[in-house]
Parts: sequence; structure tokens; C-alpha cells
Amino acid sequence: MAVYVISRRLLGGGSTTSQLAGTLRYGACWRSYSTSFREEKDTFGPILVPSDKLWGAQTQRSLQNFDIGGERERMPEPIVRAFGILKKCAAKVNMEYGLDPAIGKAIMQAAQEVAEGKLNDHFPLVVWQTGSGTQSNMNANEVIANRAAEILGHKRGEKIVHPNDHVNRSQSSNDTFPTVMHIAAAMETNSRLIPNLKVLHNSLHSKSVEFKDIVKIGRTHTQDATPLTLGQEFSGYTTQVKYGIDRVICCLPRMYQGGTAVGTGLNTKKGFDVKIASAVAEETSLPFVTAENKFEALAAHDAFVETSGALNTVAASLMKIANDVRLLGSGPRCGLGELILPENEPGSSIMPGKVNPTQCEALTMVCAQVIGNHVAITVGGSNGHFELNVFKPMIASGLLHSLRLLGDASASFEKNCVRGIQANRERISKLLHESLMLVTSLNPKIGYDNAAAVAKKAHKEGTTLKDAALKLGVLNSEEFDNLVVPEKMIGPSD
Amino acid sequence: MAVYVISRRLLGGGSTTSQLAGTLRYGACWRSYSTSFREEKDTFGPILVPSDKLWGAQTQRSLQNFDIGGERERMPEPIVRAFGILKKCAAKVNMEYGLDPAIGKAIMQAAQEVAEGKLNDHFPLVVWQTGSGTQSNMNANEVIANRAAEILGHKRGEKIVHPNDHVNRSQSSNDTFPTVMHIAAAMETNSRLIPNLKVLHNSLHSKSVEFKDIVKIGRTHTQDATPLTLGQEFSGYTTQVKYGIDRVICCLPRMYQGGTAVGTGLNTKKGFDVKIASAVAEETSLPFVTAENKFEALAAHDAFVETSGALNTVAASLMKIANDVRLLGSGPRCGLGELILPENEPGSSIMPGKVNPTQCEALTMVCAQVIGNHVAITVGGSNGHFELNVFKPMIASGLLHSLRLLGDASASFEKNCVRGIQANRERISKLLHESLMLVTSLNPKIGYDNAAAVAKKAHKEGTTLKDAALKLGVLNSEEFDNLVVPEKMIGPSD
Amino acid sequence: MAVYVISRRLLGGGSTTSQLAGTLRYGACWRSYSTSFREEKDTFGPILVPSDKLWGAQTQRSLQNFDIGGERERMPEPIVRAFGILKKCAAKVNMEYGLDPAIGKAIMQAAQEVAEGKLNDHFPLVVWQTGSGTQSNMNANEVIANRAAEILGHKRGEKIVHPNDHVNRSQSSNDTFPTVMHIAAAMETNSRLIPNLKVLHNSLHSKSVEFKDIVKIGRTHTQDATPLTLGQEFSGYTTQVKYGIDRVICCLPRMYQGGTAVGTGLNTKKGFDVKIASAVAEETSLPFVTAENKFEALAAHDAFVETSGALNTVAASLMKIANDVRLLGSGPRCGLGELILPENEPGSSIMPGKVNPTQCEALTMVCAQVIGNHVAITVGGSNGHFELNVFKPMIASGLLHSLRLLGDASASFEKNCVRGIQANRERISKLLHESLMLVTSLNPKIGYDNAAAVAKKAHKEGTTLKDAALKLGVLNSEEFDNLVVPEKMIGPSD
Amino acid sequence: MAVYVISRRLLGGGSTTSQLAGTLRYGACWRSYSTSFREEKDTFGPILVPSDKLWGAQTQRSLQNFDIGGERERMPEPIVRAFGILKKCAAKVNMEYGLDPAIGKAIMQAAQEVAEGKLNDHFPLVVWQTGSGTQSNMNANEVIANRAAEILGHKRGEKIVHPNDHVNRSQSSNDTFPTVMHIAAAMETNSRLIPNLKVLHNSLHSKSVEFKDIVKIGRTHTQDATPLTLGQEFSGYTTQVKYGIDRVICCLPRMYQGGTAVGTGLNTKKGFDVKIASAVAEETSLPFVTAENKFEALAAHDAFVETSGALNTVAASLMKIANDVRLLGSGPRCGLGELILPENEPGSSIMPGKVNPTQCEALTMVCAQVIGNHVAITVGGSNGHFELNVFKPMIASGLLHSLRLLGDASASFEKNCVRGIQANRERISKLLHESLMLVTSLNPKIGYDNAAAVAKKAHKEGTTLKDAALKLGVLNSEEFDNLVVPEKMIGPSD
Repeated sequence: MAVYVISRRLLGGGSTTSQLAGTLRYGACWRSYSTSFREEKDTFGPILVPSDKLWGAQTQRSLQNFDIGGERERMPEPIVRAFGILKKCAAKVNMEYGLDPAIGKAIMQAAQEVAEGKLNDHFPLVVWQTGSGTQSNMNANEVIANRAAEILGHKRGEKIVHPNDHVNRSQSSNDTFPTVMHIAAAMETNSRLIPNLKVLHNSLHSKSVEFKDIVKIGRTHTQDATPLTLGQEFSGYTTQVKYGIDRVICCLPRMYQGGTAVGTGLNTKKGFDVKIASAVAEETSLPFVTAENKFEALAAHDAFVETSGALNTVAASLMKIANDVRLLGSGPRCGLGELILPENEPGSSIMPGKVNPTQCEALTMVCAQVIGNHVAITVGGSNGHFELNVFKPMIASGLLHSLRLLGDASASFEKNCVRGIQANRERISKLLHESLMLVTSLNPKIGYDNAAAVAKKAHKEGTTLKDAALKLGVLNSEEFDNLVVPEKMIGPSD
Repeated sequence: MAVYVISRRLLGGGSTTSQLAGTLRYGACWRSYSTSFREEKDTFGPILVPSDKLWGAQTQRSLQNFDIGGERERMPEPIVRAFGILKKCAAKVNMEYGLDPAIGKAIMQAAQEVAEGKLNDHFPLVVWQTGSGTQSNMNANEVIANRAAEILGHKRGEKIVHPNDHVNRSQSSNDTFPTVMHIAAAMETNSRLIPNLKVLHNSLHSKSVEFKDIVKIGRTHTQDATPLTLGQEFSGYTTQVKYGIDRVICCLPRMYQGGTAVGTGLNTKKGFDVKIASAVAEETSLPFVTAENKFEALAAHDAFVETSGALNTVAASLMKIANDVRLLGSGPRCGLGELILPENEPGSSIMPGKVNPTQCEALTMVCAQVIGNHVAITVGGSNGHFELNVFKPMIASGLLHSLRLLGDASASFEKNCVRGIQANRERISKLLHESLMLVTSLNPKIGYDNAAAVAKKAHKEGTTLKDAALKLGVLNSEEFDNLVVPEKMIGPSD
Repeated sequence: MAVYVISRRLLGGGSTTSQLAGTLRYGACWRSYSTSFREEKDTFGPILVPSDKLWGAQTQRSLQNFDIGGERERMPEPIVRAFGILKKCAAKVNMEYGLDPAIGKAIMQAAQEVAEGKLNDHFPLVVWQTGSGTQSNMNANEVIANRAAEILGHKRGEKIVHPNDHVNRSQSSNDTFPTVMHIAAAMETNSRLIPNLKVLHNSLHSKSVEFKDIVKIGRTHTQDATPLTLGQEFSGYTTQVKYGIDRVICCLPRMYQGGTAVGTGLNTKKGFDVKIASAVAEETSLPFVTAENKFEALAAHDAFVETSGALNTVAASLMKIANDVRLLGSGPRCGLGELILPENEPGSSIMPGKVNPTQCEALTMVCAQVIGNHVAITVGGSNGHFELNVFKPMIASGLLHSLRLLGDASASFEKNCVRGIQANRERISKLLHESLMLVTSLNPKIGYDNAAAVAKKAHKEGTTLKDAALKLGVLNSEEFDNLVVPEKMIGPSD
Repeated sequence: MAVYVISRRLLGGGSTTSQLAGTLRYGACWRSYSTSFREEKDTFGPILVPSDKLWGAQTQRSLQNFDIGGERERMPEPIVRAFGILKKCAAKVNMEYGLDPAIGKAIMQAAQEVAEGKLNDHFPLVVWQTGSGTQSNMNANEVIANRAAEILGHKRGEKIVHPNDHVNRSQSSNDTFPTVMHIAAAMETNSRLIPNLKVLHNSLHSKSVEFKDIVKIGRTHTQDATPLTLGQEFSGYTTQVKYGIDRVICCLPRMYQGGTAVGTGLNTKKGFDVKIASAVAEETSLPFVTAENKFEALAAHDAFVETSGALNTVAASLMKIANDVRLLGSGPRCGLGELILPENEPGSSIMPGKVNPTQCEALTMVCAQVIGNHVAITVGGSNGHFELNVFKPMIASGLLHSLRLLGDASASFEKNCVRGIQANRERISKLLHESLMLVTSLNPKIGYDNAAAVAKKAHKEGTTLKDAALKLGVLNSEEFDNLVVPEKMIGPSD
């Protein structure tokens, strides 16, 4: 491997000023990588690449041409790992079609390392690149080729294992990137989002059971309404999350379509598409099949728009739930105060009971972002032209972002909030019995007009219904207590 | 029925200045209704209502309190009709629970008229009212009560048939409006959107078959790419619409949940919810069941957010398709010109062949609106508080708007555009054979380097590949024609 | 004018089956118009038009080709009126350039009738038509031509006044529709939105002054926090609305650009653009000038996206304000109860004090719709191609919808809610003095540790701070009252 | 500083199981930091912090409680730097109000290091934390306090310089985070977005001038239309970007409002707010003033919603421009081919001229994300409650994301695409002269009917207008050439 001192090399023949500027601009982030470089080549000619990195010329070119957003905007890790899975599977199937087994096995081993996240540092490209994701595919090809070469005892850059001819064999970027999108999204959905939503669902359900006998005031239009149990209230949240899981699962059949070769399948052999989908299915333990229509799968990403729509619905549900929790937990003295939320950090240095609903806040912020990402994905999905949608990295990145945030935030909300929610039974009971809505129970006994008079008196004088009823002399204390039983108001009558 | 001259009445006792202002402000739209009024009452007191209208006091109050948007913003007709269906079913079930059969039958007859759209003029309220839709429920109750009274030979306003005690019996606004939302949305989905999408799907599929042998240039990144058939291109569109139908259908199980009584079911009898859902199912021939969890069904409208998400995906698909169609049909001389679109109106008074893709334009505008409505519905859906989401009329109206627009625009696009699309075979063939992408077919015979040289020469000199190949002497005319066969490039090799 | 019986005519020569179907499909809505027809012609040939309507062939064709959404979806009235203004101005300027004064004056008179809304019934086209709005321009040309002909004593359909040669002279659809969009939006902004926002601003400011001495508990994270005055709280709302007005006004300079001729100005005379902008300015009393760059003005509608962005901000502000108002007004017993909202309709038939915040609900629904429309407009605005954005009717209609809804809802909210808001001084005071946050006032006197002990005791035992302080013996009643003065906590110290 | 071996410490007294789990979960990311820990304390008690990090207990607690999204989701660097600026200014002003100068100066020095980005590694918290940003404020306080202590020769953790009493003096989180949001956004706007938009504007303007004499076919409805110059076309883009800059600048007056103390200003001294705003203005060279209304500034973030709306408009503009560029550059053989885009990376290994418009793709993906972020910010902005909007970190992060992406992508698009665009004059001329639209020039000479006949013949036979005209014998070659001069069709006539 040839190592150059950057200043010498860049001023040498063939380097244009613009290349220099590009390189120097990247100086800052290169500092952390390397101060030595090797030369890699593509059809555009030679280019310097940091010696300690496995990537090649096309990756380096993208790095310089797309200086957008900085390191935070790197292609998400699930995409990188999915490339590892796909390239491993491709090598396996390609060996069936004649790829040299030595090379094939080295590719499989290198790809496995990518799949395990061991080579993440070698995937520097940002989301904001070519809209087909080709450059990230080449990044994967180059890294795997160089790593496979090393495994075979050769040096990086020598192209003993060729990024295109070997690693990308029978594929094209337009095959691989959509496939990788689907693998990454399906895995994140199954390994992160759904399990975490299930945990949240179970926790809400437990609370619903725990609170099943706590009768409380209902609130419609934010105004006092007829009673229900706190368990019933939580059962609504539970059902929302349950349906949310159903909604996400509904999208999966269209997400499990992948596997090369998209479009016409030019450059691939007959049957390659089915075999590779099968290999991916085996590798991921998810039921991938080759896309029913390869043209749809390349020209559009409706499955992503659809799944994002499901996440958008989950976000709307969780926003509602988290809002309720923080309002029901508001106080300690001047809010509704029906719920006691777990205290995870100091809310106020001096005031006991000021428990800021920070988990609700993190969750609702996540929901807002998921709703926003959904619009971005929709705009990208609707703007494809002809045979290729070129918003792929943004669409993939947006959905993975939403999956990750919703999954993590659901887990955090469950662990640090829902699990520890306690009912403030005293407060709930006090509010319930102060409520004027209970007056409706008196109708059958004393008639509508008298009942209304009792309520009006109580409202005007700020007293309880019972006080007002006794003062008006329409019934005695025992009668009142027998009639006004909120527990009987929480379901249909026989 | 007492008829008053408005000026006398309004200046008479009891009318406040604010009532006067409210009434006069409505003068403009009342002119078309009536110049005489009758008095109706509610717990707030008497109020003047146009004599020729069936509505009562609460409707009138809403009309005056919510002067927002004008007549265009009236509650959508499918909601009004669904009220007719629900109230008819409620009367039927209530008769089982003891409602006087004479009154019950009159209610059923009046409600049937509402269901048939015969009383649309009596539903003047706008979407922008109370967020529970209570006022529209009262509008339905009042209209049906007055109409039922007339059927029974009484006058409107006499409350022989009582809006609350009879028409709304065993229900509450918070029961009925969510149920009506579900009925209306499910009916529009089944009667308008899905059938029209199916027609569009079939038409696209026919074109896909019709065009199956037309080989054409592919375009990726908007750049010339390897060939495919026009049929394959249309098969992608066909699949998008097919999946779109699947996506909408996926949401229906959660849309078919309705039927009173939401929430705790206070005021209803046990079993009423199941019976009324069953009656609605019979009336609509759609598989309605009572909501699995009444609290979720009242406090949230996730089923609407979800369905809107499916429509959003359909919109993204149709936007893509319509964009392709207009770009492929661009010209007649200076565009791509591969498709000939039907000419439905003069495009240019002098220039033949200028066929503006107006159906594509209408459809893409509809798609943009559906994407926007989806955000509105999501914002409304995420903002519920406690036991009642109070964005109901907006959510319902938004989804019905999207269903209507997408359904109608799909039909219009199919009828006035897709059905009549013709392939410009001559143009397609010319472009295909001018393309430099076909050079890849020469690789096996003359090698990569020679093939590239041919392409470069052709590109530089603006000639065809064949010209360049012959000039370079790398093969003869017959050899070229044998090798360069686009028809062989449209699928994987054996 | 030839009047035909529809059945005879439609079966006569020249009517194709498809025309018949189209006509019959429109039968339903025609019933309300007419049962007789006259023949009008365009370059496509003859077509039947309802006798009592002023429109011509191109309008009729659009009506049949774009059966999308029904009557609710008609082009908004402000667009129709703006066409009246523009065509009047065009006739005026065209007379300077040689248009026959008799015809010019008749056009001006007819256009004036359009501007006044007198001919609204003759503008039946929906928004979902050609994306340039050409068909609505032709609708205006045809109606004005026919009406002008009548004014001159001729019959409609005779083309004495020609829709294109006279009414549309020196213009093209691509000139007029963008201009009309700007006129309509600028007028609605100035005549509806801004005045209503100003009224709301003044009303909020009055409340801010009225409530300036009412000290209340603050709430951050929905939790009790340090006090402020209710006037200060309302001053925040007031400022939000004030800035909202500023934001809308900021967009106007780019909205006041209009006036033919867009694009290259082919078909117009030099100076025509400046003169017509000047005439429009005079007619509307708004400072219209001709667009700085005609290409931008036709190919994009960024001024609409921008203005919609300002409305989106106003919607976010009003959503916040309305949410606060309904939560602060929640109760009467089990909510925060600090505000008493005006009661505009029965909230509950028996329970006094249950005042549903229906105006807040209508307003927040409007805000959600405005946020959604903004996305639709953005999608439309971003999707223009080449010299012409073809989402014009949707963009115009969306912005006008948002302007109307926000304007009307602001007025309704002000009149029916804000104006009548009362402070529940007793409740506010009770909550304030129960609050534990006031303990911070004790720090200087008794030290942090003692103060914290007081608060903890009060929280644990559910008593007031004073009770706890006295029980702990850290100070006496008088000392407590001297120290704990919330009024001193509402600003920085000297 | 006490350094512990993690295994021993975590199993020691006081560590709960949950703390252990939390810590172990963070093991992965801690590996890169540290294997030793020190103890820090807050009111919740002691907690272990990595020895090599400057943060304290509250930061550590947030890190463990908000395991959402991973390192990519860290609070954006401009926020961290703005904290450095604000804390430096606060120390400076606090010294005027009595802060010990030795401590004050050390704080200023430490804060300066934060402002310069030198301590970025010590800001590990993610966006998805408490909605007030309090935890990031405490992160800043803790890091600066520990660093200042080191500067003064003490150890971290000793609280010689106290995070609250010294660094946060006269401020509160609710003061500082909104201020920091405004500083960061204003700086990014001024230092990144506007300069890059200006460079893009200048480059587009240069192209507009360079192309001013190239007459080309216009396209409306994607169909051939009357001609214009390529320079006129680019002047439209230029104007879009120019207005975009104006739109962003319009928002700045409301963005330059910051400076403590928000809300009532409790805990601050009179005049502190004005002084600190002045110090920030001096430090940033931007005209910051104290917020006109502190309640608005804390309870809402309308200035962010507004600015995001301006960015949304810029995104819509750039989406349009980039779409045009890629379509005009489509080809090389089968597209429009009027523009030649610079080739930055291999487009096709064999096909010359296949230049994928990758910069357009990156830019349009960015635009879609900005449009999505705008919705997220709007949802966050509309959902504030009472005195505090708790979507602050999401709102700030979203706007900074959009500012960064738009700024960087504009620069990349300019440098790697616009600057190098060449007109394909030959192709442009060929298309122009093949166009049938030029027939309109013949009207005055040969009359409308003859002109139409020429066009129809040319369209039908696929020939040029000239061929058709000569064949029809309506004029001779010289006459045709004198009449059909596209250069005369690009402006109004005299």
C-alpha cells in the first residue's frame, strides 16, 4: 500500500485545485481517521483514500462531492448491516452460479463482519447523496472487497476481490439498495418497534387491571362528565397500542418483498431473484420473497410510505396517551393530580411533589418528529420519475429514524413512566364526589326539576351536592348516599 | 305554526341585541330560505327558526354561533345520510326496548328520508362547530323529530316526537357521532373509492397487456437506461394501484367498529350496543360490529388516521403514475412523446398535437390535497383529551373529502385519460434505437473496450451506435443487427 | 337562442354516446338549473349548454370532463370575483390600445357584475380541472362575453362579444389565472383575515389589561410553578396574535405582484403589464405592481407557499391559545377552573356550569385544517415543471380556504368566547395559596433547609404551607403572611 | 477525585438494581469513554460519572433515563456552542451584579471553550429528553463548573464552582434554553444558510446572463409552448432564490429576541435581561435584544415555526429548480437534453454522456426532509401548554437540521452542479426549430386558417413547419425564414 504525505500528493500532477479544496475541506474530519493515504482508482481516475479505511475510490468521491450535514447524517447503521446480510447472501448464491468459492467465502466472511456492525467506521457516506443509494452500495462493495482481499492475504486497493465483478455480481445498485431498505426496515420493525410496543401494551394493560375498581370523574370537552373507572380509561390506551401493533403488522407483507433483481433483471440469471430472497429469508429469519413486480419495487417505495403511515398512526395514539398522562398527573396542588408519576430526576430543588412528566415530553417530541418524517417520506415517495425513485436514502433513513425513535421512546416511556404510575386514590375520590355530574342519579327519585335545583344550588354556593340536597330538604343523608353511587354509573343498565 | 314578520319579532321582547346581530348577519343566506319564522325552544329559551326548515332551536343556535366558512363548509352529505341510517336503526332497536311503535315507525320513515338525501337542505350546520359533532346530532334529532311529527299529522315545533327523548333515545351525541363517522367513511370507501380504484386498476392492467411487446428505453435518474417494455412499465403502475386497494381494505376491520354505546354506555341498556351494530350492518350490508373498546372509540379516532394514511399512500402512488404519464406524453415535438394522450378539450387553438395532460393535472392536485388532509387528520387525531377527541367533524370531513376526491379523480383519470392512452410506437422505437445504452449488447462480441469506443464515438459525433460501429470497423451491419436486439434485454438471461 | 328539448337533441346527429353519458350524468345537477339547452361551439365543435346559463362551450366541456367532488368543490368565490376585477381592468386598458369602446364598456359592466358576485351561479367549474386554471379563465371570458352581448342587446351564444378576442384580449390564461390568484388572496387577507385577527388581538389585549392584577399560579411542564398574573398570561397570547399579523403582512409585498403579462409577454403590447397592474391597484385599493420577474410568477407560486407558511404559524399560535383557554376553563369542579367561559348553547341539560368550550373546538379544528392545507400547498408549490406550475387551482383554493377559515374562526372565537371570558378569582386565589411553590419566599428568612422541611410537611400531610410552617414553629402567622406575598414574585427584584 | 472500578462500585451499597441496569445498558457507549468513574451528587443522591468526562449528576441521570435514538440524536452542536456563548455572557453580567470575579473569569474561560466546540465530547445528551431542555442546560452548567474549577486548580466534582449558584446564576433553564435556541438558529441562519443561498443566487444569476441569447422552446403543462430564452428561464430560478433569502431575512427580527429572563423574571435583577441580551449581541455580532414579551417567548416558539415556514418555501423553490435542471438535463439521447450537467462521478461504466443528476437528487431529498421537519416543528409549536412549551429540543433540533441541510445542499448544488451547467445549444436549437408552436408567427402574413393548415400538415407528416409551408405553397423559403424568427417571440411587441 502506497502511503503519501498529503501535501506532496495533492500538489502533484493531475490534482486540480478543486480536488485540493475538497480534500482540505475534509481535513477536519480526516484528522480523526488518518494522516496517511493510499491511492484508489475508478473509471474517473485515481483518488486518495485514508490508509486506515477500507473504502475505495467511489466512496471517496461521494464523500467529497456531498459535504452535506456532517457525520450525524451518515447512512443509518441498519442499512449498513443490511448490506452485510445482502452481500453475504449474494456471494452464497453467486457461488451456485459459478463464483470462485475462495473469493465467495472471503466475501461472505467480510460481509458477515459488516452485518455485525464491526466495520461501521468504514461507511462514512451521508444520506444526502445520489438518490438511488448507489454510492452506499459501492461503499459496501469496496469495503467488502478490500476486507475480503485482506482475509485472503492481500492488500486493500489491489482489487484481488473486485467490488463490481465479485461483490456486486448479478446485482446492480438498483437491485441492492431497495432490497437493503426492505431488510433494514423489516428487521428494525421486528426487533425494535414491535417488541417495545408490546412491552408498552402489556404495561398499560396491567395498569388497566390494577385500576379496574377506581371510579373517577370522566372528562369530555375537558369538562366534567359522567364517571368511569381509571381502568376503563387505561383500557382505551391499551387498545390504541394494541391496534397500533396490528397496523404495523398489516404493512409487513409488502415490506417482506425484496431480493434482487429489480426491474427487468438484466445482468442476472433466471432464478437468481428467488434464490437470493430465500437466502435473505434464512439469514434474517423473516419471510422475505422476491418482489411480485420488480418495476413497482424500484420505481416507487409505497411500502415505505404505507409503513410510515402506520407509524404516523402509532405516533398520534402515543401523543394522545402521553398528553393524558401528563395532564392527569398535573399538580401537585394546582392541577388534576389524579395520577402520581414516577420521579426520575429532580423536578424542583425545593418543592416536593413537582414531578415533571419528562418521559411524556420525550415521547411527544418523538411523535411530532415521526409525524414530520412521514410527510418527508410521502413527499419523497410521490416524486419518483420513470423507472427509479431517487429519494431512496431519505425515505429509508426517515423510516428507520421513525422506527428507532418510536421503539426506543416506547421502551423508555414504559420503563421510566407507565410502569411506575400510581393512582392518587384520595384525590380521585375527592374530585369524583365533588362533581356535580352525579346529580343525574337523583332524577328517578326526586325528579328532574328538583335534581337541577340541587345542582344549581351546589354550583352557586360552591358546596357539595349532598349539602345542597340536604339544605333543600329534598332527601335525607341516607337516601342521598343510597342514590349517589358512582360505581353504578360506569356501564349500561340491565 | 306561528309565522312572524322578522322585523317585528326581532325587536320584540326577549330578543337581545346580540341575537339580532346574529340573525341579521344570517340575513343573506336566509333570503334563499324563507322570510317567515317560527319559534323553537331549548333549555336556553326560545329562538326563531325559518318556517320552511325542519330544524329546531339547537341547530339554529349553532348556525348563529359558528359563522365560519359559509355554505361550502356544511357537514358532508355522507354524514347526514349516515345519521339517517343510524337513527332509523336506533328507532328499530328502541322499539324492542319499549319505544311507542307509532312514534318509532314515524322516526324510521323520517330517518329513511334523511338517509336518502331528501332532507339535505335541513342540515345547514358547518364542520367548524363543537368538536364532538353534538350539534349535528341534534340537527338530525330535530329534523327527524319534526318530520316524524308531520308524518303523524302534527306540526313541526310541537315536540310530539321529541328530539332527545325519542329520536336520541338510548344514545348520546358521543355515541352517535363517532358511529356516524364510521358508517359514512365505510360506505364511501366501499361504494366510491374501491370500485373506482378497481376500474383504474383494470384499465392500467389492460394497457399493460396491450403494450406488452413494445420495447422502449428505460429511464433511471431521468437518464437513459437499459430497455424494458411499455407493458412492464404499466405493470408497475398496475401493481401500485392493486396494492393501494389492498392497503385501504386492510384498514376496514377497524373502520367497521361502531354502534352505540361508546364510553361506559351509561343511559343505554345492556345489549343495545350489539343490537344496533347489527341493525346498522343489515342496513348498510357492511359487517359492522360494536366497538371492541368503547373508550378508545370515543377518545381517539386512530381508525381515521390509519385510513387516511392508506389514502396518503394511494395519493403518493397516483402522483407518481400521473407524473410519468404526463412526462411520457410530453411534446408533441420537444418532449419525450412516447405516449399519446386523449384530447378532451382544445389544448391550443392553432397547434395540433398540443394535448395538455389536464386529467393528470386534476389528479395530481387531488393527490396533493389528500396528502394535506392527511396531516390535518393526524393533527386532529393526536390532539384528543381524556374521554373525548373533539376534532371529530374535521377528522370526518377530511377523510370523506379525501375519499371523494380520490374516488372521483381516479374515475375521471381512467375514463378521460388512461383508457384512451396510445403508444407512439414510432417515437418509442426511434428513441430506443438512438439510445447509447444498447452498446452493452456488444460487450460479449467485441469486448468492453471496443464497445466503449463505439459509444464514445457515437456520443461525440451525434450518430447512431451502428454508424459508429461500422465506421470503427469493429463489426459489420449484419453482425450489429444480430447483436443489438433490445427485445433480449428485458429480462434475466437463461 | 335555440332551445332544444334535451332528449331530442341528444339523440340527434353529432352527439356521441360519450357526450350523452356525460350529459346524463350531469342530469342531476342540471335539474336545478334548466331543462332547455342552447348550442355553443368551440374548436372542438358544438356542445349543449343550459339555456339559462351564460357560460359557453369550453366551460361546458370542463364540467363534463371533470366530475370530481361535486358542487362543494367549485372554484372559490373570491377567485370568481377577482376575475371580474381583472377583466374589467383589462377591458379598460385594452380600450387604450384600441378595443372598440362600445364593446369595452359592455365588458366592463358585465365584469363589474362578476366582481360583485351577481353572476356566481354561472361559474360551475370545480377546482379539480386543468392545473393552469385555464378553464376557469374561459368560464369568465364566456360569461362576460355573453353577458356583455346581452347588455348590447344581443343574444348569448352569438359571440358579438368574443370571449377570446375581446374579453381575453392581450391576456392568456397563463397571465390571468396567476393574477387572479394574487388579487383574490390579497383581498381576502386584507378584508377578512387581518381585520379579524386585529379584533382578536384587541380583545386579548383588553383581557390582559382587565386581568393585570390577578396573581395566579404558573404552570410549567403542566406542573405548578412560580406565580404570574393572569394579565401576563394573556399578554403572551396577545403578543402571539400581534406577531401573527406582522407575519402575514410580511408576505404581502410578494403577494401584491400581479398584472399581466406573465412569461415572455408574447401577445401583449409593451407597457400593458404596468398599466393593468396599475388599474388593478386602483380598483382594489391595494398596491399591486407588475411582477418583477414574470417567469417566476408563472412557473412557481412561492408567494402562496410563503403566505400559507405565515398562516400555518398563526394556526400554531391559535391552537396554543385555544388549548390553554379550554384547559384553564375546565371544570366546573374537577378541572382547573380558573377561567369562566361564556355559555353559548346548552352544555348539559341538568348540570349547571358545564360549559363546553365549543369555540375553542371549532378554532382548533380550523387550525388543524390550515396546517394540513399548508402541506397540500407546499406539495403543489414544489411540483411545478418548466414554465408553468400546474397546481394553481388547488394552491389558490387551499390558501383561500385557510384565509377564510382562520379569519372567520378568529372572529367567532373573539365574539363568542374571548370577549366574554371572566376570571374565576376565587378559584385562582385558592389554587395560588394552596400551592407549594410559594415556599421559595421563605428562603431568605428561615433558610433553604427549613423552607424545604415546611414544603415537605405540607405535601405529605396535604395541608397549606402556613399550617406546616406554624406547626414546625419556624415562624408565626404574621411573619408568614408578611413573607409569602405572591404579588412580589411576578417580576425581577430591584 | 475518587476513581472506582465499575464492577466493584456498582455492586456496592446504594446502587439500586435499576441503576445497575441503566449503567450496564450504557456500557457499550461508555467503552469508548472510560473504564473508571467518579461520584457526583445532586438532590437525588450520588451517581457514577465517567472520570474523563466533565459532566455531573444531572447529565448522567438524563443519559440513563433517555436511552432514545443513540449518539446520532445528540443535541446539535450549534446548541452546545450557543450555551457557551450565553454562559460566558451571563458570567460577565453577573460579575456586574456581584459574582466573585475569580469565579466569573474562570466561567468565562470555560464557556469560551464550549463556544469554540472544544468540549463537544462532554455533551452526550440526546434531543429526546425533558421538553424544556433543562437537562442540556444542566449539562452546560456542570461541564462549565467542572472545567472552571480545573482552571482554578481544583478537581472536577468538588463544586468549587457551583453549576447552579455560579454558572446558572440569575438564570433558569426556562430562561436559558429558549435563548440558546434563538442564538443557535440566528447564527446558523447568518453564517451558513444565507451565505450559501447567496452563492447559489449569484451562480444562477451568472447562468441567466450567460444564457441570455439562447432562444429555446418553452414548456407549459409539460407540452411545447411559445419560446423564451434559457436566460429568462434561469432568471425565474434566480428570482426564486432571491425571494427565498428575503423570506428568511423577514423572520430574523423575531429570531433576534432572546436574552434572559423569560417569564416573570423571578430570580433575576431588574435590567439583567437587557444587559445580557446586549452582551450576547456583542459576542455574536447579531442584533439581539431582550424579548418584547417574555411570556410569549417561553410558552410558544412561533419564531421557529415561522422561520421553518420560510425554509419550507425555500425548499419548495429548490425542489422546483432541481427538478427542472434534471429534466432539462435528461438524456443523453432519449430525454430533453437541453442542459449538460457536470459529471462528478461515474454515471455508467460504459455509456458516455450518462450523467446522473446526483446533486439534484441530494438537494431534492434535502427539500423533502425540510418540508417534513417543518410539519414536526409545527406540531411541536402548536402543542404548548400554559407557561412552557415542552417541545423545545425537538423544535430547535428540527430547525437547525433544516438550516444545516439547506445551507450545505445549496452550496453543494452550486459548486458541483449549477456552476458547471452548460447549454446544449445544438440540441436546444434543433428542438426549437422542430417545434410547431412557431406557426403562430405566420398568422399575420398567411392568416389563421392557412397557418393552422401548415401546422396540421407538419404534425401529421412529421415534417418541419417550413417543409409543410413550402409543400402547401403558402409562402416561399425566404418568406418563411423572414417570418419565423423565434428571437422575436420572447417579449411583448412594440
